[in-house]
Amino acid sequence: MAVMEISVIPLGTKTPSVSKHVAKALDVLKNEKDVKYQLTPMGTIVEGDLEKLLSIARRMHESVFNEVLRVVTTIKIDDRRDKQLTMGSKVRSLQEKIQTGSE
Amino acid sequence: MAVMEISVIPLGTKTPSVSKHVAKALDVLKNEKDVKYQLTPMGTIVEGDLEKLLSIARRMHESVFNEVLRVVTTIKIDDRRDKQLTMGSKVRSLQEKIQTGSE
Amino acid sequence: MAVMEISVIPLGTKTPSVSKHVAKALDVLKNEKDVKYQLTPMGTIVEGDLEKLLSIARRMHESVFNEVLRVVTTIKIDDRRDKQLTMGSKVRSLQEKIQTGSE
Amino acid sequence: MAVMEISVIPLGTKTPSVSKHVAKALDVLKNEKDVKYQLTPMGTIVEGDLEKLLSIARRMHESVFNEVLRVVTTIKIDDRRDKQLTMGSKVRSLQEKIQTGSE
Repeated sequence: MAVMEISVIPLGTKTPSVSKHVAKALDVLKNEKDVKYQLTPMGTIVEGDLEKLLSIARRMHESVFNEVLRVVTTIKIDDRRDKQLTMGSKVRSLQEKIQTGSE
Repeated sequence: MAVMEISVIPLGTKTPSVSKHVAKALDVLKNEKDVKYQLTPMGTIVEGDLEKLLSIARRMHESVFNEVLRVVTTIKIDDRRDKQLTMGSKVRSLQEKIQTGSE
Repeated sequence: MAVMEISVIPLGTKTPSVSKHVAKALDVLKNEKDVKYQLTPMGTIVEGDLEKLLSIARRMHESVFNEVLRVVTTIKIDDRRDKQLTMGSKVRSLQEKIQTGSE
Repeated sequence: MAVMEISVIPLGTKTPSVSKHVAKALDVLKNEKDVKYQLTPMGTIVEGDLEKLLSIARRMHESVFNEVLRVVTTIKIDDRRDKQLTMGSKVRSLQEKIQTGSE
């Protein structure tokens, strides 16, 4: 299991507002079964196995093209093989360190 | 006002667990007055003016070096000048488009 | 045709030197037929169709795991559908604008 | 000394061609004294000390706003403190590993 962050940026959109185009990419996730994701102010975070994450990324990227001619998509994958990595475990692990200040 | 996402990655940390190092960077934010930020599974999102955001980014990056010798920091800044961009407004704008399906 | 930039970062590598691990990812590209790529100080840039680029990205990411337990891979795809985008055309287009200062 | 990659993306540019806007950011670099940089198909790579790199990043980002209202800028900084990191040394170190296949 890996955690992916994806952000799609449509170029040449007439106005600086791009949310209606980005919403198309999120529709792909909404229609996906059994996928856990989280919307942030700077992108979308999804957890799943690598193959599935990349398939989702490809379809999210494609979905933006119905009205725009150029899309820049950034994908970051955090993949750890010695223990289960989830969106929840990543944040919890960090919050414990911040609160206790322990090493 | 702009919105920044920052992620610090310490290299050469002996184990694949890096949260104790990343926690140092978050301490910088905790000690910052009047800065709104949000922790996500893939980074930290901060809103503020450009000058302040870059100053925070520099100090977060530096803070990780007390125990590690190499840090790769990724910063993404979304800066819009025709209207106020906030972490909240970005997510709300997107959620409206998804729910209504309107353009 | 799209242009992709990919960067693989192995975590928990004991020393801050990671080039021997990153070299594994580049071996994937070397063994690929008919793929044009360029090594930069911050990643690798590849041109090709979207499907192929994501397949290469997946294999480059996987290749780093033989000795490390965690890999953070960043992929950026610039995909334009109204005209052919290549590594060469992108740089040329920019250099013309810089030299002439024309709009 | 650190190595930075920066990419500026103007939004709402009416056409998918953005090179004339990106060229403004490169003018900032051209006018900078004693800064080593390299143009790639996906961004610009600069080497220097952290403070200077972030100052350059801020000015490159700002320079794009004279005609556009929204800019998304991505900055990646690779900073190593146990030895001198340069654009040249990073690529050379990698090429040695690929050619010899040594570990």
